[in-house]
Amino acid sequence: MVANGPNVSLDAVAKEAGVSKGGLLHHFRTKQALLAGLIDEWFEHYDAAVESLLEPEGTPGRWTRAHIRATFAEEEDDLWAHPSVVTALLGVPEVQQRIDTAADRWRRQTDSDGLHPQRADLISRALDGVTLSDLLWRGQETREHRESTRDLLLKLTEQDGPLV
Amino acid sequence: MVANGPNVSLDAVAKEAGVSKGGLLHHFRTKQALLAGLIDEWFEHYDAAVESLLEPEGTPGRWTRAHIRATFAEEEDDLWAHPSVVTALLGVPEVQQRIDTAADRWRRQTDSDGLHPQRADLISRALDGVTLSDLLWRGQETREHRESTRDLLLKLTEQDGPLV
Repeated sequence: MVANGPNVSLDAVAKEAGVSKGGLLHHFRTKQALLAGLIDEWFEHYDAAVESLLEPEGTPGRWTRAHIRATFAEEEDDLWAHPSVVTALLGVPEVQQRIDTAADRWRRQTDSDGLHPQRADLISRALDGVTLSDLLWRGQETREHRESTRDLLLKLTEQDGPLV
Repeated sequence: MVANGPNVSLDAVAKEAGVSKGGLLHHFRTKQALLAGLIDEWFEHYDAAVESLLEPEGTPGRWTRAHIRATFAEEEDDLWAHPSVVTALLGVPEVQQRIDTAADRWRRQTDSDGLHPQRADLISRALDGVTLSDLLWRGQETREHRESTRDLLLKLTEQDGPLV
């Protein structure tokens, strides 16, 4: 079933995107192309956010801090805020390949950022955890808890050496 | 669409579970009941694993270490290893409610485990990140990387005080 494409109706996607089904199909020939387009656009948006948050060159941890700030930025109309879109995206090979490529790029950015490997790995894992939380518990976490995690992660980039 | 239930075919679930569709429907009257049953069974299994890994009472960090070990335990036939099951589970209210309840329980266990709040939060976030990785990149991470993260998290529970 998954190999045959996502089990989401274009009606549902069109409704959540606030456009007509005809409008969707005018731009995208197939459901897979639509989903690949959605994820491409989201990654472009996220990468642009990271770039805009990047400190001047030469500071250790600058890529990592930009990723932390971009991950915690509140997006009113984020792609992942729409449950039927998330459900549709998972399991689609074209989408999975794009997620893999982006994750590799982000991992390389934080791994070669001048931080101790323990700090780099822990922060990457924690940011993935915040992403899971956004997918499963969007809006259920307190702002206080999110800001406390964000500040802890930022501070971890400002010091050096092993954590244990 | 999501409100009406998961977009997975019972054929697909039956095929991945290695049983007949008739056998599935004999035990579960509705698709929602089947999915709620799957998640209940998985949580029981996970909680039993955590209990079995729990050190004797009185050691700070013992719940957290048990969660770390259970999260990193390799499960050959894990529920989350089946993409069509994962896709089906997300967005189903009965499942979401169970995930929320379990996450609350686990969070309470690690938050009242005698660890510094910075350590508790960072470890919880990192374990969520490992879960995201299991969902999106199952089998793509090296064993070496997983073990390195696991050992780092375990060591973080064995020391005390703030991290930053």
